[in-house]
Amino acid sequence: MRVLIVHAHPETASFNASMMRKAVSTLAEVGHEVLVSDLYAMEFDPVSDRRNFRTVADAERLDQQREEAYASANGGYVVELQAEMDKVVWCNALILQFPLWWLSMPAILKGWFDRVFALGRSYGGGRWFDRGVHAGKLALCSVTVGGPPELYSDHGFYAPLEQILFPVHRGILGFTGFTVVEPFIVYGPQRMSRAERLARLGDYRRRLLALESLPRVENPRTSDYEGFVRKPSGAGDRLG
Amino acid sequence: MRVLIVHAHPETASFNASMMRKAVSTLAEVGHEVLVSDLYAMEFDPVSDRRNFRTVADAERLDQQREEAYASANGGYVVELQAEMDKVVWCNALILQFPLWWLSMPAILKGWFDRVFALGRSYGGGRWFDRGVHAGKLALCSVTVGGPPELYSDHGFYAPLEQILFPVHRGILGFTGFTVVEPFIVYGPQRMSRAERLARLGDYRRRLLALESLPRVENPRTSDYEGFVRKPSGAGDRLG
Repeated sequence: MRVLIVHAHPETASFNASMMRKAVSTLAEVGHEVLVSDLYAMEFDPVSDRRNFRTVADAERLDQQREEAYASANGGYVVELQAEMDKVVWCNALILQFPLWWLSMPAILKGWFDRVFALGRSYGGGRWFDRGVHAGKLALCSVTVGGPPELYSDHGFYAPLEQILFPVHRGILGFTGFTVVEPFIVYGPQRMSRAERLARLGDYRRRLLALESLPRVENPRTSDYEGFVRKPSGAGDRLG
Repeated sequence: MRVLIVHAHPETASFNASMMRKAVSTLAEVGHEVLVSDLYAMEFDPVSDRRNFRTVADAERLDQQREEAYASANGGYVVELQAEMDKVVWCNALILQFPLWWLSMPAILKGWFDRVFALGRSYGGGRWFDRGVHAGKLALCSVTVGGPPELYSDHGFYAPLEQILFPVHRGILGFTGFTVVEPFIVYGPQRMSRAERLARLGDYRRRLLALESLPRVENPRTSDYEGFVRKPSGAGDRLG
């Protein structure tokens, strides 16, 4: 496999960074090629606007999707975005390594998607879900969570992680065609002993070695729908 | 009321910007005080790390929450963050104006929360939900959505907007104590006629005039829980 790891933590001594390095070494050890986009180290700018483009479709009024369509057709992305887009094309597995901040991705990672997953490059023209641009590629979220697991259940303050990660799994990865495998979650690494943290890194290693056969997160198939609405005769699984 | 509008769209001719201006004029007209944080116009930096702080609790290893606790106790935030924190303290109603990008907030707004809603300023020490720092304040999400409403239902590709906004309503606003009112959603303003857009701005005006009496989004109460887990004898409503 060709694996792209997008890493979003500012501290090189963090557990997230340890997980990223564990993934690099584990995947390389079994012969996969690995690239890392270490967003903090790269000083990646997550703000999406005209700074994304070298081309201009409409100088009067910024319509981001119109500019993206135009830039996609005319090689109009700035060098740092084109480089990230090329990595996404290159890979056949994408790993997101991030801490859950406010029940979602840190802004630096959200902005990577806002800018890199552009119209004409990651979607457009009816290419979504099983017909998506990235169909055939795997995606895994590897996430640390500050609070204890009891918070993240139907009986806690929040909700199960599958629901919390729905915008990422369904709205970004599933939408653009990725086959999404079940996330790897570590709760409260900051309260663990060193031995416990090492054990969780071992768990992560085993998960990575089985990456291609892991259980998948359910995403819809376009054939289940007509005009965006589920057919009465559809596969029957409730979405969302 | 003292209303803070946090606005996250790069184009001043966008429908989001029209909604922001409609809110400013409507609220001012009936005597409320209004402040706007126009994040793109301010060139707000959404990346959270040591750049947040003038103080240093641990120069060796960045633990963001530890640095936040220390900065909160020692007036250690950089000027641009302290200014945003002061606005949040000042207001008794918070309006978020944003387009839904990838089923969540644009990175520039996500990073506003990552940086401004710091430990010791917006939460900490058992202050959450009904005991939260911002208890007694109202919050409203005013959101534009690119796709049609059929996509956002139990029978569409995605899920109802309430589920998609769960991380914001529950994890950020509810967690820090805000009373969250039902969101104002406009689907597909880019495909509307000018007359339709004006009609939706009129709807928004009426919604704003009723802000204090709008239906609320359900959030948990700390008294329903012991040790983070819902009591069997609790209020009985399923979370999430």
